Amino acid sequence: MTHSEQDVRLEISALSRLVCELLRRAGADDASAVAVTRSVIEASSRGVDTHGVILVPHYLKVLFSGRINGSPRLRFTQRAAAVGYLDADNGFGHLAGYEAITHAVRLARRCGVAAVSVGNSSHFGAAASYTLAAAREGLIALAVSHSDAVVIPHDGVRPFHGTNPLAFAAPMRNREPLSVDLATSAIAWNRLLLLKQTSRPIPAGVIADADGMDTTELGNAAALLPLGGRGQGHKGAALASMVEILSSALTGMMHGYRLIGMEGLDMSTPRRLGHFFLVLNPSAFVPIAVYDDLVANYVSDLRAQPAISGSAVMAPGDKEINELEQRRGTGIPVPIDTWASLTELASRFGVETPASLV
Amino acid sequence: MTHSEQDVRLEISALSRLVCELLRRAGADDASAVAVTRSVIEASSRGVDTHGVILVPHYLKVLFSGRINGSPRLRFTQRAAAVGYLDADNGFGHLAGYEAITHAVRLARRCGVAAVSVGNSSHFGAAASYTLAAAREGLIALAVSHSDAVVIPHDGVRPFHGTNPLAFAAPMRNREPLSVDLATSAIAWNRLLLLKQTSRPIPAGVIADADGMDTTELGNAAALLPLGGRGQGHKGAALASMVEILSSALTGMMHGYRLIGMEGLDMSTPRRLGHFFLVLNPSAFVPIAVYDDLVANYVSDLRAQPAISGSAVMAPGDKEINELEQRRGTGIPVPIDTWASLTELASRFGVETPASLV
Repeated sequence: MTHSEQDVRLEISALSRLVCELLRRAGADDASAVAVTRSVIEASSRGVDTHGVILVPHYLKVLFSGRINGSPRLRFTQRAAAVGYLDADNGFGHLAGYEAITHAVRLARRCGVAAVSVGNSSHFGAAASYTLAAAREGLIALAVSHSDAVVIPHDGVRPFHGTNPLAFAAPMRNREPLSVDLATSAIAWNRLLLLKQTSRPIPAGVIADADGMDTTELGNAAALLPLGGRGQGHKGAALASMVEILSSALTGMMHGYRLIGMEGLDMSTPRRLGHFFLVLNPSAFVPIAVYDDLVANYVSDLRAQPAISGSAVMAPGDKEINELEQRRGTGIPVPIDTWASLTELASRFGVETPASLV
Repeated sequence: MTHSEQDVRLEISALSRLVCELLRRAGADDASAVAVTRSVIEASSRGVDTHGVILVPHYLKVLFSGRINGSPRLRFTQRAAAVGYLDADNGFGHLAGYEAITHAVRLARRCGVAAVSVGNSSHFGAAASYTLAAAREGLIALAVSHSDAVVIPHDGVRPFHGTNPLAFAAPMRNREPLSVDLATSAIAWNRLLLLKQTSRPIPAGVIADADGMDTTELGNAAALLPLGGRGQGHKGAALASMVEILSSALTGMMHGYRLIGMEGLDMSTPRRLGHFFLVLNPSAFVPIAVYDDLVANYVSDLRAQPAISGSAVMAPGDKEINELEQRRGTGIPVPIDTWASLTELASRFGVETPASLV
């Protein structure tokens, strides 16, 4: 991802300490501050800037304004041998996400597969935060969440679905997991905001105006199109439906269209989002050496494919692994307005801010 | 779907009897013939002509030529409390699919969630055959399968992934389940064949020629693009990767790129495909009345959305439910060349063929 020359660049651990401290000062308990920091710093470190530190000012705002419970009492109930439910008590979705995937990993080690649904939650950042956590422990994981209405349904004109992300990660022998993380919209809402922040053009066929007509003017954008655009948008919309059923009907939460928005005037009412996590233990299916060999063969065959000029065929997550490698040296780019918010708050709290690497 | 005026139209039960009898005469045992017939007739009845009776001549061919074992000994092994493995013994994928989902339903009733992977299998027709079977018994189901290389990877130029379909079905109170069934390619290969059979144009941005360049000439088509086309194809390709890991690494089968093709010169070697089935018991997550209400609210809000002129916003599976309603009266349209194959075989076996309704 290209960044504006106005970005500051911060060493990963220094930025991590700052984010965690700001969250604590704004009212998050230790567990919540650590969970949010872990998710956003991991996203930013892997180049997923849409779900990284640019979200921190928002998270601090909803903590101040009361939407988020900074000291939630998470309640886990096991409801069947391989199923659990986690009540997030209107805390940060990140805390609930890490807690839920930990339970799912534990149950899947015992039963081969397990699912945990989460209710009374909030925005959980990058869905890959949780699938990667499970995959690094040797398990395959799926994570989905609904969100409020920003995507028009296929053949529709007004927003109905959320970007309803889906993440999937599979462990690989001696390397970072294969990692899928995608919005079921044609583009992620946060990516649009990032394109705007970095003054880059909006591609055709991904956003619609208030009349449901295609546009490339972000100023006219009232909705996103589903993955597949006008022609094949029934597929993206169908995936959004799948995510919605798992995130609401299995969590007891209302579906996304009836939720209040992430942005908007009301920052004090809890949003009561739902998430859904599934974990599979590969060694319950095949000997682990067979699994490891098959995944390794697949990824190596995929990477060896011929590419269009100037590109390389990559496996899901390869780009993020490369970016992580690079950012360990060059630091995390933080857009200038995000940095202004963070330093303003740091100054108010008397927290020291690290110097930019550039 | 529009049909050529040359189509014959056959009453559903009459066509079903013919298909089943032809499969038996060609060497399928009762269980195999019934399973294949159930899947293809259901697909055709629901308007999913790509995965319906047009596949029967192919299925008969691979039975004759020895690729398919017409009398397989399916072997199910429970490998963990909520996980099983089914060896399909190189029989029809349809038989294995129905058997696998039955085991998954049984285990999910006990554990809340269950997964069954299938190895040594073959083409299983419409993935929705199996998710619908589970959903009609009140359970949520996911089914995926890999297949041989026809889809170019993102930024690639040559086929690598299969169309790697994903189906999902969720039960609804007092009506047919919500049903998602999509290829992770920009278009299904069988749909292209159907467009060709019915002389309809190929949309832009879904197929590529032998150099990996976009084309709309079916004659030049060497590959499909992933869902999302050139711009967002990383998403379709990532979904294909997810399907591939579940279908090969969890089944012990090689990944799709290393499998022999569905079409091609070799019709006698078993293809050794893998499938993966997951079943969730809604009542293990929330009281069933809560689940039913939430799904009903979601579908009714979705259907009430304003639509582009001349259309209606539909829930996944609505189109198929409407088509089923209609075809119960008007029968199933069978393309003239499919019908020629079937009648030729029927005549060879001395099997009577039903008369066309038109």
